[in-house]
Amino acid sequence: MATDPPVFDPSEHPHRRYNPLLREYVLVSPHRMKRPWLGQVEPPAADTLPQYDPKCYLCPGNSRSEGAVLPQYTETYTFANDYPALLAGPLPPAPPAPHPLLITEPVLGGCDVVIFHPRHDYTLARLTVGEIEKVVVEWTRVFVQRGMQEGVKYVQVFENKGAIMGCSNPHPHGQVWSMSSIPQIPSVELRNLVKYSLSPPPDPPSGAPRGDKGKPCMLCEYAHFEKGAGERVVLEEGPWVALVPWWAVWPFEVMLLPTHRHISSLLDLTPDERTSLSTAISRLTKRYDNLFSCSFAYSMGVHQRPTPMQLDDEGEAAHLHLHFDPPLLRSATVKKFLVGFELMAEAQRDLTPEQAAKRMRELSEVHYLDLMD
Amino acid sequence: MATDPPVFDPSEHPHRRYNPLLREYVLVSPHRMKRPWLGQVEPPAADTLPQYDPKCYLCPGNSRSEGAVLPQYTETYTFANDYPALLAGPLPPAPPAPHPLLITEPVLGGCDVVIFHPRHDYTLARLTVGEIEKVVVEWTRVFVQRGMQEGVKYVQVFENKGAIMGCSNPHPHGQVWSMSSIPQIPSVELRNLVKYSLSPPPDPPSGAPRGDKGKPCMLCEYAHFEKGAGERVVLEEGPWVALVPWWAVWPFEVMLLPTHRHISSLLDLTPDERTSLSTAISRLTKRYDNLFSCSFAYSMGVHQRPTPMQLDDEGEAAHLHLHFDPPLLRSATVKKFLVGFELMAEAQRDLTPEQAAKRMRELSEVHYLDLMD
Ligand SMILES: [Zn+2]
Ligand SMILES: [Zn+2]
Repeated sequence: MATDPPVFDPSEHPHRRYNPLLREYVLVSPHRMKRPWLGQVEPPAADTLPQYDPKCYLCPGNSRSEGAVLPQYTETYTFANDYPALLAGPLPPAPPAPHPLLITEPVLGGCDVVIFHPRHDYTLARLTVGEIEKVVVEWTRVFVQRGMQEGVKYVQVFENKGAIMGCSNPHPHGQVWSMSSIPQIPSVELRNLVKYSLSPPPDPPSGAPRGDKGKPCMLCEYAHFEKGAGERVVLEEGPWVALVPWWAVWPFEVMLLPTHRHISSLLDLTPDERTSLSTAISRLTKRYDNLFSCSFAYSMGVHQRPTPMQLDDEGEAAHLHLHFDPPLLRSATVKKFLVGFELMAEAQRDLTPEQAAKRMRELSEVHYLDLMD
Repeated sequence: MATDPPVFDPSEHPHRRYNPLLREYVLVSPHRMKRPWLGQVEPPAADTLPQYDPKCYLCPGNSRSEGAVLPQYTETYTFANDYPALLAGPLPPAPPAPHPLLITEPVLGGCDVVIFHPRHDYTLARLTVGEIEKVVVEWTRVFVQRGMQEGVKYVQVFENKGAIMGCSNPHPHGQVWSMSSIPQIPSVELRNLVKYSLSPPPDPPSGAPRGDKGKPCMLCEYAHFEKGAGERVVLEEGPWVALVPWWAVWPFEVMLLPTHRHISSLLDLTPDERTSLSTAISRLTKRYDNLFSCSFAYSMGVHQRPTPMQLDDEGEAAHLHLHFDPPLLRSATVKKFLVGFELMAEAQRDLTPEQAAKRMRELSEVHYLDLMD
């Protein structure tokens, strides 16, 4: 009682950080990381996958399901998922609620699979920038096409990579799920971006870009601040910054977003912006692989404006960004589990975002496999 | 365009369900489950764990960490975690925010480990009701004790069970993390329970119990409705109901709560209510183990009123309930991963809550190991 409280040290004292995008807290326990980083890395794993796997349902020319054969595609290739979680309309009307607390909302949409490259043994980290750019162009095409489908309100581009994430096929691919409602997480983000855009701009002005009609944009503001602060930045590439967010839940979580202007969707990218985004993805995924000398597992998602394109609050307030949520903690096999306290109470991390960003800044961008014989 | 929209069928049409406790949606894709349940079960796994493991840091008489030895305890035993995520005070004052978007909140608290039983090879499903009741009594004791610690606002009781959940020690135990802020998830639940308690009561009256001062309680109302509807109920035990919530995210997610009166914490249980709760836990965990003939993995958490006990809105609106979130989907080894679309957009399930509850109702309450030689 008589002792003075200590002065707060973010690398020492347990604390919570606030995520203004989701209005959620994450618990940070940095004192558990006080041991110095031991540089513990797995021995590099040689890439043992074949370039072509006759049993892979994504390799060119193979049968992807009963009666459907993939063409001999030579670059990205997209097809509608044969077992989609969402179906095209017509949409049945919502049934009456059996109780006011039991609400149902019918949904329509569709699910696409985007194969990144014909080579079975590649990942984004092993593609050239030009090849990644073809993936970005394909994401954009599907975003526009699905966004014009009747009733579709949101097009969610994502990639789930790695056996540790339950992804059973290593062939490089992502998915696009399109839906007649804005899904939970982008919906909360958009609501908070809209709220921020309607609030008074920072005073004095921060020098950050502004959104449509000069409105404040939380992510323009945030990216601008982080670029200046530097301690959570992993890399910068032209107008793009990859950073470990202040409120990151996953050990090496990264957000990749533009800093120089308000961009609401993939469709709004200039050719130069698209190329530099592709370079940023290449550099980031190489760093990820080099972190534990393994093909790094993650879930990646693109958040952007709802569809169809219209001049509403959400469309204006949306700020294009990519999330990378990787579960790996200390090596290729040590995984962070979101269980127990995290499922029941609050997300928690030991390693601080600043420590994670520093580790990632120190890594090479030459892929570890390119250094092996 | 000319075809009439079909009539909504919850076991046929993709839809979203609303969770009023968290104000979140979950996407349900029931058409992917149209194949009949194949009764696929793993061959029963004989229990190969020893009753005592000399290397276990939780077995009686063993060393739990450098310099700390466990006594020869004969029933439940609690000790403070040697590597806690939360530390006792004094709490440093919050630092100034480097930017209005970057908010830090220092926290204090403590982390306890509650060993359920001396036997290394037991789980809640293998304990007698009397032994489970000792665990419930111990949870209550720690809830009261930690709730009196200076600055503690919430006491989170939970169990993380199973190697598939990252729990490295099978010795039956749970944890209690106490914190100077109400953690994210119970905080959102409490906010919505308070809102509901301040809204007009159902008209006409539903016959459900009411909260303190006759205020409406969302969970009294919900449990009362589900008890009557029956299709999501797994079991009833005296005043307790175990049900798969309308908005369940995990395949066999269960909420266990009282239906006969508004109870805000473990401390408010009568001896009879505590015994019937213990019986309900016993019956539920036996059914879980019988589902795939394995020691079923889950995270379990107790949600109740904040501490210290005071007559505020949150304390009054809290309704005691236990969540069981199990990741197993079709067998002891097929796990549901919360990745990709779920991390980036919205929780998703194929099996409907009604189908899951029906499966669980059909199971025996005689533990599969008691049927083996
Ligand atoms: Zn986002
Ligand atoms: Zn709860």
